[in-house]
Amino acid sequence: MEKEITIYDIAKILGLSPATVSRALNDHPAINSKTKILINEKAIEMGYQSNTFASNLRRRRTNTLGVIVPRLNSNFMSAVLAGMEEEANISGYNLLISQSLESAKKEISNAKTMFNSRVDGLLASVAYDTDTFDHFESFIKKGIPVLFFDRIIDHPKCSGVVIDNVLAGFTATSHLIEKGCKRIMHVTGNLKRNVYSGRLKGYQDALLQNNLTASNELLMITDLSQEAGKYVAQKIDEMEIRPDGIFISNDICAVSCMKALKEKGYNIPDDIAVVGFNNDPVSQVIEPNLTTVYYPGQEMGKVAIRTIVNHLKGIQSIDVSDKIVLPSELIIRKSSLKEID
Amino acid sequence: MEKEITIYDIAKILGLSPATVSRALNDHPAINSKTKILINEKAIEMGYQSNTFASNLRRRRTNTLGVIVPRLNSNFMSAVLAGMEEEANISGYNLLISQSLESAKKEISNAKTMFNSRVDGLLASVAYDTDTFDHFESFIKKGIPVLFFDRIIDHPKCSGVVIDNVLAGFTATSHLIEKGCKRIMHVTGNLKRNVYSGRLKGYQDALLQNNLTASNELLMITDLSQEAGKYVAQKIDEMEIRPDGIFISNDICAVSCMKALKEKGYNIPDDIAVVGFNNDPVSQVIEPNLTTVYYPGQEMGKVAIRTIVNHLKGIQSIDVSDKIVLPSELIIRKSSLKEID
Repeated sequence: MEKEITIYDIAKILGLSPATVSRALNDHPAINSKTKILINEKAIEMGYQSNTFASNLRRRRTNTLGVIVPRLNSNFMSAVLAGMEEEANISGYNLLISQSLESAKKEISNAKTMFNSRVDGLLASVAYDTDTFDHFESFIKKGIPVLFFDRIIDHPKCSGVVIDNVLAGFTATSHLIEKGCKRIMHVTGNLKRNVYSGRLKGYQDALLQNNLTASNELLMITDLSQEAGKYVAQKIDEMEIRPDGIFISNDICAVSCMKALKEKGYNIPDDIAVVGFNNDPVSQVIEPNLTTVYYPGQEMGKVAIRTIVNHLKGIQSIDVSDKIVLPSELIIRKSSLKEID
Repeated sequence: MEKEITIYDIAKILGLSPATVSRALNDHPAINSKTKILINEKAIEMGYQSNTFASNLRRRRTNTLGVIVPRLNSNFMSAVLAGMEEEANISGYNLLISQSLESAKKEISNAKTMFNSRVDGLLASVAYDTDTFDHFESFIKKGIPVLFFDRIIDHPKCSGVVIDNVLAGFTATSHLIEKGCKRIMHVTGNLKRNVYSGRLKGYQDALLQNNLTASNELLMITDLSQEAGKYVAQKIDEMEIRPDGIFISNDICAVSCMKALKEKGYNIPDDIAVVGFNNDPVSQVIEPNLTTVYYPGQEMGKVAIRTIVNHLKGIQSIDVSDKIVLPSELIIRKSSLKEID
């Protein structure tokens, strides 16, 4: 193998400082565009592209980033996208967004559309039933970075931005146990997805640690929609031995469930304490206000864009980190504060 | 297989020159619209559609439609996009979505990105401060159809899908008057936009018809955010003579205002009756439940896609109709039902 070309080699040949070369390759505003072109051309000529920037320099840039999300009608996703837009604006990128509607088939088609739109990078949060990585391979092959967020797929060439879902599930469940709950139900989504399997694991760990049983009857896998919330309330109403606490994996479903339980005459939290997830605004509208897990959506969006832009600028490759883990936080409100005897 | 119908066959039957037929099918400005309709109808009748709308066929199709929205974090827009996705799926189109964040500058940049992504058609709901049509001209010039929805711009080459905002504002205000309100406040958004100016007109008409005054003090122009709702409640609390009813142009702002008023000790609806707009799910979570205007978002999305796809398929040109007006409906709940003496 030949010796690898560095910015020092380029600097020497052009009679410029290494700092100038580095800045030019990173598209720094302090360097004028003629110099940038000169340096970039020389870099390509010398074979510098095999280094970090690799494909980026060769490929025509569109300054567009593609974002594939499961659904747009969620407050959490809106917050993520708001954070992404804010950060993308700063870096001069435009976002193109598409939704998979929780269907792997549509996600594959979305990925193709993004590829054909020649996005410079792809950010994705995968659908309920996505089983393969195949539809992202074309990006990897072409050197287009792929970054997952929230719902991730593990892949050596990609990174993911997440929260610690196991910890969040553990904290939520432990809180219900502290408030006196002994029979805690967990309502969640498709367990193929890290976010739901992680929270379930946290729930189970908390029960185990407190010598409580995790029975099948107390676990409900749903699509976490409003309708699912009503269905859960109905199921609870029909149970012989009802739960005294529920941890539901999103607020939309939790609020709808609380509403239905209240209509059936149950007192929240004294009959049944409820904890949701996401800290959607609706959690502060329902009465009693919903205890929930604050999920830093906006921050997640910002970090995701920053990570992919840094890769594109050659500042730091995306596969340096396997995962970027952001903090989450339990926000305690009245829906879980039982009067303990 | 039958012999393929050509423009020469159509020209012969209609007694026109092939050039005229070709131009009409290509929507050339030199041909008057009556002739265009005649020729297009005959072309479809004769089975020319496999060949029609030349430009579309000649142009490489991407089967992608671009959608530019002001913001994704609204239930109404989520409903519109859900309807769009449903209909686009049926027709084999993929959507690429971008948000202007209510900024004309960003909308211009979004339009450019969509253009470079070679979308087959563009659907747009414009930002608060969009003043010109210029950024859509490149689409028109290239024969790419542009359709507005909800927040529209009038342009001879485009169409728009809307509700009758004047009527909706009139109905909402008249309802408050019927329930005994005599001093009705209206909270709305930027009046450059048809949706807000229309609802204001309806509000003013209703007051006028009932010999009530529309004072400046009772009109508040805001960004209709949650924060705006709190601000409105604060302003009301500081007033010497307070309103006995409020019509707020979206539910997010209305719910936040109700919440703040309740915290200040006001009874809803007896002290102040409230009517919102959009029928967001949160309108059924707040207590008392919010009277609001049902806005057929999903239907609007479907109609918009159907209209643009029909144009692309050569079934019906987009500029046949100036506007497509969908029905809206007042949904009466407890927030406006004052006990009348």
